[in-house]
Parts: sequence; C-alpha cells; structure tokens
Amino acid sequence: MNDPMSTALLTDHYELTMVQAALRSGAAGRRTVFEVFARHLPGGRRYGVVAGVGRLLDALSSFRFTDDELAFLAEHDVVDAATIDFLAGYRFSGDVYGYREGESYFPGSPIMVVHGTFAESVVLETMILSILNHDSAITSAAARMSHAAGERPLIEMGTRRTHERAAVAAARAAYIGGFATSSNLRAGFLYGVPTRGTSAHAFTLLHDSERQAFQAQIAALGPATTLLIDTYDVAEAVRTAVELAGPELGAVRIDSGDLAQAAVSVRQQLDSLGADKTRIIVTGDLDEYSIAALAAAPVDGYGVGTSLVTGSGVPTAAMVYKMVARADPDGELQPVAKRSVGKPSRGGVKAAFRRIGPDGCALAEIIVPDGPHAAQAAVTVPVNGGDTDPRDTHRPLLAPLVKDGEVVGGESVAAARDRRAASAAELPPEAHHLSRGYAAIPTVFAGPWGSP
Amino acid sequence: MNDPMSTALLTDHYELTMVQAALRSGAAGRRTVFEVFARHLPGGRRYGVVAGVGRLLDALSSFRFTDDELAFLAEHDVVDAATIDFLAGYRFSGDVYGYREGESYFPGSPIMVVHGTFAESVVLETMILSILNHDSAITSAAARMSHAAGERPLIEMGTRRTHERAAVAAARAAYIGGFATSSNLRAGFLYGVPTRGTSAHAFTLLHDSERQAFQAQIAALGPATTLLIDTYDVAEAVRTAVELAGPELGAVRIDSGDLAQAAVSVRQQLDSLGADKTRIIVTGDLDEYSIAALAAAPVDGYGVGTSLVTGSGVPTAAMVYKMVARADPDGELQPVAKRSVGKPSRGGVKAAFRRIGPDGCALAEIIVPDGPHAAQAAVTVPVNGGDTDPRDTHRPLLAPLVKDGEVVGGESVAAARDRRAASAAELPPEAHHLSRGYAAIPTVFAGPWGSP
Repeated sequence: MNDPMSTALLTDHYELTMVQAALRSGAAGRRTVFEVFARHLPGGRRYGVVAGVGRLLDALSSFRFTDDELAFLAEHDVVDAATIDFLAGYRFSGDVYGYREGESYFPGSPIMVVHGTFAESVVLETMILSILNHDSAITSAAARMSHAAGERPLIEMGTRRTHERAAVAAARAAYIGGFATSSNLRAGFLYGVPTRGTSAHAFTLLHDSERQAFQAQIAALGPATTLLIDTYDVAEAVRTAVELAGPELGAVRIDSGDLAQAAVSVRQQLDSLGADKTRIIVTGDLDEYSIAALAAAPVDGYGVGTSLVTGSGVPTAAMVYKMVARADPDGELQPVAKRSVGKPSRGGVKAAFRRIGPDGCALAEIIVPDGPHAAQAAVTVPVNGGDTDPRDTHRPLLAPLVKDGEVVGGESVAAARDRRAASAAELPPEAHHLSRGYAAIPTVFAGPWGSP
Repeated sequence: MNDPMSTALLTDHYELTMVQAALRSGAAGRRTVFEVFARHLPGGRRYGVVAGVGRLLDALSSFRFTDDELAFLAEHDVVDAATIDFLAGYRFSGDVYGYREGESYFPGSPIMVVHGTFAESVVLETMILSILNHDSAITSAAARMSHAAGERPLIEMGTRRTHERAAVAAARAAYIGGFATSSNLRAGFLYGVPTRGTSAHAFTLLHDSERQAFQAQIAALGPATTLLIDTYDVAEAVRTAVELAGPELGAVRIDSGDLAQAAVSVRQQLDSLGADKTRIIVTGDLDEYSIAALAAAPVDGYGVGTSLVTGSGVPTAAMVYKMVARADPDGELQPVAKRSVGKPSRGGVKAAFRRIGPDGCALAEIIVPDGPHAAQAAVTVPVNGGDTDPRDTHRPLLAPLVKDGEVVGGESVAAARDRRAASAAELPPEAHHLSRGYAAIPTVFAGPWGSP
C-alpha cells in the first residue's frame, strides 16, 4: 500500500534551479548517470544494510508536481515559467538499477544507479537520499541488534522518539533488519509489519490498585497478556500477577532498574509460583550492547525504542548521489568526477558483484566497468593480490528497479527481510563484532578509476 | 496549511489495548491529567527549546480513525468490537495547556498538560511525544548553532540526511531556532519557511567545462547567484566566476577542504579582483562547534545539513507523557505517580512560571500546584534558599492550546521564531556555552511532590 501524499516537493530548492539553468543552457536533456554510494560506514560499523528501496519505488510513483505546488513555485519565484512547464509534465522516464532491499553494502558499493536525462535525474536526488539514508541507517542498526539478540525476539517500540512519519518507516526498517514486531500501528496498516502491545504504567495508575489494573487487563486481553510489573513493587506485582492470571500468564515486562538482576529474581519468583512458562520481556533504553550484555540473563524478549529509531548513534547513512557519467556533445557517455578535497568521487558506470567462496562466505565486493562483459571481468579480479579460486561464485548486486520510468523491481517487505537475513549470514563472522572496526570485506575497484 | 493525511494510526498498539481494557473495567471515562516533561536535558545541554506545538495542533485536528484504518484494526484483532466503536467516534474533547512554541524549557518543566478522560487522552501519547521530541531536538540544536553564528545567516540543507517527511519538520524547526532559510521546498509550501538554493557539483560536471557551467548559471539566475567553486581548482574557479559575473557576483560556496583557510584565500582573491561585496558561504559537515571555530574567518553564511537534522548528537528530546492525576471513585482528581527505579514521576497538576530578575535575566523555573492562587504562590517561592526580590516578574508558561477539543492556541511559525529568540535572549550568558554543563537555571518545585 502506498502513502498517497505528493512527494515532488520533498526536494532541495537547488535541484530545481539547476533544472532551470540547464534548460537554458541546453544541457537539461543530456543523458547522465548518477550513482548512490557511501564513502564510508559510519560509526566504525563493519557492514551496512540497504533499506528503503520499496518505499523509494512508491515515492517515485508519486513524484508529480500538483497544481498547488506549481503555483507555489511560481509565486515564490523559485524557478521561471519555462521550468514550471517542464515540472508540470515531469515524469521520470529513465532506468534505475540498485542493490535489492536487505542486501549488505560496503564503502563504495554502487548502491543505486540512475540513467536518464540530467533534468529528470537530478530532481530525484534529495528524495532518493532521504529515503535510503534514513531507512538504511535504521536497518543497519537493527541488524546488529538482531545478531546480539540471537533467537530471542526483538520488539520495535521507538515511535515516540522520532518524527511521527519517520517512525512508520523505522518500524518497517526494523522488521527488515530482523525485528519480530513493532508497536507502530501505521506500519502494520501500510506495510504489514506485525504489531503488538499491551499496557503502560498509566493503565496501572488509572486504577485504584495494581490488582484492579491487572484484573482489568486480564479480563480484556486474556491471561496470555503481558503485565507490566514495575509501577510500584516488582515482587508484589509478580505475586499478584500469577495469582490473578494463573500459570498461563503470558509474560511480564520490566522497564526499569538493573534489568539483568531483575530478570533473575523475577524468573526465580515466577518458577517458584509455578509460572515457569511465563516469559520475561525487558525494555528501557536498550541497544545492541546492552542486549548482548543480557545474553546470559533469563530474558525472553527485548523491546527497543530510542536506540533503534536513532540508528544507535548513527542516525543517517553516509550515502551521496553523484553524477558519474554524462553524454558529450556527440551523445557518447563520458565518465565525470569532481576533485573536491577529501570528497572525490569515481567517474564511470559500474557493475557490482559479491564474490562468495566455496564455503558460502562472502570474500569481496568486486566493482568493474558496466557492460556486457562485466560478469566475466569480475571473475578474474584478484583480491589482496591473491589468486582467484575457480570455485568462487559472483552474485550480481544491481537489479533492475525501474525500466523506462516504470517500476519493475517491487517486492514484498517479507522478501527484503529474508534477503537481509541471508546476506548477513554469508558475511564473515567478524562482520558481527560490535566493536568499532573496518569493513568486513574489501571493496575492490577494477577499472580505470584509480583510487578515490 | 495542514498536511492532510490521517494521523490516528501514528500510535503505539498498546494505547488501543489500554483503551479496550479500560472500557471493560469501566475506568475509560475517568478524568485524568497527563503531563509532558523531560527528566533531563540530553547531551549536557544547558537549555532546551519547545518546538512542534503548531504541528501537533494540526495533527490533533486530523486525529480521526478512517474506515480503512478501523477495518485494519478489526481484521488484525488489535482491539475488540466495542473499542472499534469507541475509536470510530473518537474526537478529543478535553483541554490542553502547554509551553508556547519557541519557549525555553528545563528538566521537569511541565511542557504540556492534557485534561480529558483516560481513553481520549491516552491515545494521544505517542503522537504528542513523536512530534515534540523530534521538533524540540532539532530546534534545541538549531538554537545553539544560531548563537554560534551570531549575525551571519544559517541555511538549513539537511533534507537528504533524514527521513523525507522528518526533513520538512526539521526545516520548520530550524527556522524557529533562528535559521534564515532552508533548502526544503515543502517546508516553504506548508509553513512559509523561506527557501534558497542554486547549484551542486553535478551542474558543473554536466557541462563541458566549469566556465560553461558558470555561464549557464549566471544566464539563468543572474550575477547575484551563488557559484560553487570547489569542483576542480578553487583559485581558477574564483577567477572564472568574477570574470563572468563581474563584481556583482552574489556569493561563492566552498563545500570541502579546510574551510577557514579556504575562506581566507578566497576572500583575498575576491577582493583583489574587485569583488569585495561577493559573499563567501561555507558548507560541509558543520555543527555549532565548527561554526564557532569559524567566527574569525571571513565567512558570510553557513549551510548546515547532517548535524542540524540529527540534533547535533541529540536526535530526540527526552520528553515523556505521564499520568499525574486521575479522578477517584468520587470524581475528585488525585495525584498519581509511578515509583519505577530511576524513572519516578511527580504526581499532581502543576502551574509553571519563569522568574525574571529586574535586569531581564531569567532566574528560575518555578513549579507550583495548579489552581486559582498559583501565580501568587509562585512569587513567594525561594530559590537556592535566598530571599525573593519584589522586583522579579513571573511569566506564566502554560497557555491554553485546546479548549473542549477545539484548537485555541494556533499561531504562526514567525511568532514561534520570535519567541525563541526572545526567550533565549533572557537566559543567563552561560546558557549559551557550548561545553557540556547543567541547566542554566534551576527548576524549583514548590509543592507536595517531594524530590523526583
């Protein structure tokens, strides 16, 4: 399902002034290729996860300027009449290739490649980056939390800690990253993310006693519900909870204090009361580090809020959208690159392959010039000066997403979630270390690009 | 102007299950008072700025469950039929008081107070917190950057570094925080934020030479435009720029390298070419610290992206929404508070005043029990054990925002922007130190609440 609001003004002012100037200079219709890539993995991460692709394809379909929006642009002299005319008829007609949602990426991976005229491609820059940078940051953090949690389910509950619409995207991104459920109802409505929730401290405080609150909740939601036990005294709450719900009590939630210590004593108390099937859910400022630290505690699930929706210290991926080729006056594509100090880019249209060893473990990201022989070229690229192994396989990473302006790469959120798990599983084990480090596999550029 | 999309599902699942259980227990209609406050100022900040109030009032007006949304809730068994009926008729009918947008706040400030039945008030929790936490985090960071920039204008250009809709709110929040302009077109369209922009490196790369690109831009946007001079060689770009635009060249932008050093040499070069009125705009991973460090450099404006939209290390304010009072079985409001370890709250309905000394400098946040005599009580509250000064004034901080469900506190973004500047100006000078520290003024609770 598509969020129907117009997306065309989710765009930086300068994208439109560039269109105006290019329409005037005659360069607006030149064929160009733009590439999305990240110069580095922020925060000492060892891999990143591409997310937001599905949302981006939806947003691209809604990228049309409404009459009200065009009137705004005219009235505020954002651009001239000729540009308004161009925008009124705007419809992206080019091709987009990209890493599929849930795929791992590394520094320099050509995550998305946009072929089209300059004018039709440049106006998409801001929206493409907003969506990919936000969603990839969340899924990349979620993936680390999922690995730390192991088989224990993660519940996303950070909606209140981020922008109200970003929260919906974050819930979707967390689910792709391996979370089991979310508190966010709109993420259920729009994307089919499973939603869960029971009660907050306010529900206990509303009633004249904790006992009455528990009774009310069990009456309404059944004994398999999750009771929140830290409003007053935890031990008394556990006693009351099992007394009222019986051993079928589904779960208890602890939201404060030393969670490891509390889990141990609550587990003992539940077991002694015969509620040995009742699960213990912990919440309260968890991140991948505290989740890992709770591995030995008798915890059955984690609720994660702030750290998830803020990317656990990395609220945005470092992706940029750079022109890598454009047609010369004869119509031939020529590589282009800026030379800005500290921020250079590699010109040229690229193809990308994940090299996988015979044991199924990813070895390298191989980047070669795009073209009919790219796959053959990739096979021969040496990594770290070593020989190539004929048993290695090479998974192509750029899939067609848009063809002649039509979305051809749509897929379900469930498919992206499965891909995320599979792609992470084939990374070398050190990819999942939580400490700061370097990219888990090298990105090898075999082409006429030189070093970045 | 209002973003028209339905807001009712921007809500945590558990808000609705609590309504279901409270409808069943009979407590759903109890009168309650919820309070928004922050236990601390994150990141060692010395004051926070309340933002998002205007967006929240808009979102509250759109908080109605559509038929599609109700069908989703029923189909997925989120809540039972009685609750669906309640939600179908949902319309907030209570009162909301709050700090006005742009006002400074401190730990424990009762930023927003919601009076209504439990059921109608609890379902607003998630949306209220999402909006206030996001926008306040951005405006609080923007305010620090504004102080660091002094008279030099700040340009918000972080859209591509955050969720595409969060970016619109961030542009609005930055403007309230003192930024002059934004790149975000939708923020102009929805909120009247002034938008600006000229060109990116891609525009230079598109043309066969930098000279042709500059010619094209000047032809389309006039010589008063801003030319981006770091695509290839900065000194050559400056020469070309002044040759083509003449001394009327509006500005040049530097986006890479050592910005202070580059600004000095570009200034010298511009002056030597007679372009002594041409301004220098710097961009590229700036935050309040690097802005402050550029104070002595010949810079005329700053573009800020990532650090603004991510709250400069603090992407969310720490606001929570807690029940502080509810009616007892006789209908009398009683204070309530949870006792969770490390996360206690103060029960009781509060009034808040900013005490201002005779020199116009803020001295304290005074919190007293709400009621007809609150203002008189606030005057007598001692701060730090000292005597009160009869010349002190006390500005009431809680204004009526919603009365009987109708918005009564709407105001323009410009009014919020002016308030932000005025409120910041009356804080003691140490409030604006960039180093980590404590709240710039104490929050004094004079009531039956004890310590938190």
